[in-house]
Order: sequence, then C-alpha cells, then structure tokens
Amino acid sequence: MTPTITAFKQSPDRGRGLARDMRVRWALEEVGQPYEVRLVTFGEMKEPAYLALQPFGQIPAYQEGDLTLFESGAIVFHIAERRAGLLPDDANGRARAIAWMFAALNTVEPPLVNRGVAALLERDQPWYGQRQPLLEAGAHRTLGELSRRLGDAEWLDGGFTAGDLMMIGVLFRSKGSGILDEYPNLAAYVARGEARPAFKRAFDDQLAVFTASSSG
Amino acid sequence: MTPTITAFKQSPDRGRGLARDMRVRWALEEVGQPYEVRLVTFGEMKEPAYLALQPFGQIPAYQEGDLTLFESGAIVFHIAERRAGLLPDDANGRARAIAWMFAALNTVEPPLVNRGVAALLERDQPWYGQRQPLLEAGAHRTLGELSRRLGDAEWLDGGFTAGDLMMIGVLFRSKGSGILDEYPNLAAYVARGEARPAFKRAFDDQLAVFTASSSG
Repeated sequence: MTPTITAFKQSPDRGRGLARDMRVRWALEEVGQPYEVRLVTFGEMKEPAYLALQPFGQIPAYQEGDLTLFESGAIVFHIAERRAGLLPDDANGRARAIAWMFAALNTVEPPLVNRGVAALLERDQPWYGQRQPLLEAGAHRTLGELSRRLGDAEWLDGGFTAGDLMMIGVLFRSKGSGILDEYPNLAAYVARGEARPAFKRAFDDQLAVFTASSSG
Repeated sequence: MTPTITAFKQSPDRGRGLARDMRVRWALEEVGQPYEVRLVTFGEMKEPAYLALQPFGQIPAYQEGDLTLFESGAIVFHIAERRAGLLPDDANGRARAIAWMFAALNTVEPPLVNRGVAALLERDQPWYGQRQPLLEAGAHRTLGELSRRLGDAEWLDGGFTAGDLMMIGVLFRSKGSGILDEYPNLAAYVARGEARPAFKRAFDDQLAVFTASSSG
C-alpha cells in the first residue's frame, strides 16, 4: 500500500524545504518507501473533509490504507518503526533516538519558531525591537545547549537516526536567518544532513512542485 | 530496576501539577510502576553533571539501569511502550495515540506556553496589551480546533491513552488562567483526567514534596 501525504499547493517558501512535509518526505526517502503527494490549498485545509484527516488544518497528513495520521513527528516515527534505517536496533539507543525527536519538536523548535514568527508578523510593530533581546536569548540558550551536547560528533547519539532527521529538519528552517552561523558545529551538522542523498531527493521533489507549476 | 526521575526542589508552583514531571509521574502511576524521585535545585540543573543527563538543563530526566532519557514526551512514551495501559494493542490505534502525544506537545502546547510566558514575564511591558490579541488568537485557534475534534467524546480516540495523558497534562497547565472555561467539553475532558486515581496519586505525591518541606 503506497502512502499518500498532503503538502501545500501554494507554499510560502515556494518549496525550499521549510514546510513540514519536508521531514516526512526525507524519512520516506531514507527508508526507500515510495509515496504519493496530494497538494491542498489553504482554503481546502480549513474544510471539514480535510479537518477529518488533520484536526488542526495543517500539512502534512498521512494516509496508508485505513490509517490516517497527523503531526510530522508522529508520521516520521511511524515510518521509522516500520522500515529499517532510522532507529537503532538496541532498545536503549532506540529510546534515546526518540528522545531527540521530542527534543527537536518540543524544546528546540518553539524558541526558533517564535523568533521567526515575530520577524514575519511583528517586524513593523513598535515593540519588535524591544522584544528582540528576549527572542534572541531564548533561541541562543537552546542552540548553545544543543551545540555543547553535539560537540564534534557527527550525529547526536551514534549513527544517524530519526532524532537527527527531526533536529536537522528543525534547524534547517532557521538557517536562512543566519543564527546558525554562530554555532559552526550546528551549521556543519545541518550541512551533513543536507548532503544525504535522501535529503536531496526529498528537497528536489518538494521544489519540483513549484518549479513545475510556475512553468505551466 | 526501579526508575528514578528528577523534579524541582524549588518549584515555581509549589507542586501543584504544573511542572513537567507531573506527566511522567502520572504515566508511571497509570501503569503501576513504582519510582524514585531525585530533587534538584535550579543551580544543580545547570551543572555539567546534570547536563550530562539532560542536555537542556530541564526536569524531568529519567534513569533506569544504564538508560538515561529526557523530554517528558519521550519518557511517557517509553513507559507506555513497556507496560500495558497507555497504548492500544491494535497497530493503527497505537499510531494515532502517538500522534496525539505529538499534537499535545508540538501543536497545542506552544501557543498556550507563549500566552502564559507573556503573562508572567511581559505583563509590565508597554507592548503587553497590544500583543494580547495575537496571543489570544493563537491559543483560541488551537483550542477551538481541539474542542471541535473532541466533540462529546470521553477521550480523543477510543479509550484513554498516552495521547490523552499528554493532552490533559498540557491543558491542565492553562486551567488556572480561565481559558478553558470557554470550552466546556475541554474543561470536562481535563476534569475526567484529574478524576483518574493515577492522576490523583501523582498530583498528591508532587504536592507532598512541598508540603513536607514547608513543615520542616
């Protein structure tokens, strides 16, 4: 049964890896699982038919036979559990890889998203400059701790896992803001992720949605 | 092997269920797993010995034999995977319960935390009132979608799962702000969680840390 994921028909980044289907595409490529993509408009995402699949009206949703899943973390975990390549075989290593998945989404992503959203939505507000030190401090505290833990290791805990995939997926979204330049080991870590053939295939496929449609 | 979790020695809420060890205590009580608690000060949490257990200097960390875990979501999942009571037996129901765990932490918690943190740290700032509509809109959008999905069901997807435990754990932290009063089905859902004997045992044990020490 070939799974289907949903993705933006009109992506704000025009398919440059920032939308959350990127993580799921990457995971599917890492394990060699072919998949279909169904593009949805922002309007369709708020309709009852879509909300039945994804209660918060977000992308990606994942459908495979009679299973429907949402949340990129849960979808990547589902893929990682069923096919080899993203979770270690030993129980303790597997549990730690899962811990890094949760850390990526619940500890590292929130301060980076808050900083990014403020830059996008509040840049013209009178308080933007005054709140900047708060936002920067939150992002740097987390990135500093992550950088210290990674040190000069290649991946977070032994070989590449779904924990690295989620963490690099989160960090990649902040790369364009320049904040990773202050953490050379994190910048190199993200670059190692981007250099993986599965990342490249996922990235190219996401981008092709937009390069194809803009030539049409 | 009895697991040990870390928790605040000085908790800002004085043990009233808001610190993230609450979710882990609750999960351990649901599955009937005895555990030890090691209390740590804010100072100790920033020291290298603690950062080796928990790279972001947070509570809870979890130790069981030679396994060390962090992130409350990952710890609850580890507990749920190893003992019966928190994940359905059928594969699809299990995957959906995990999706609700991620939704609790990555979709529902961030706007509620942002609203709570602003009330705590920015209430005296000149921009606090101006940003309130943004913060309220973010929290209400998410709670509205969750309320619509829950409808008049008892739990999010069939019987009580680790997904409900995490979601109620997240919502419970915002209960004191009054925001749940606008969603009677969510308020009743949280109350059903609080009424579970395992929740009560976990809550009482967390509170006892502080009532015991204040009488000493």
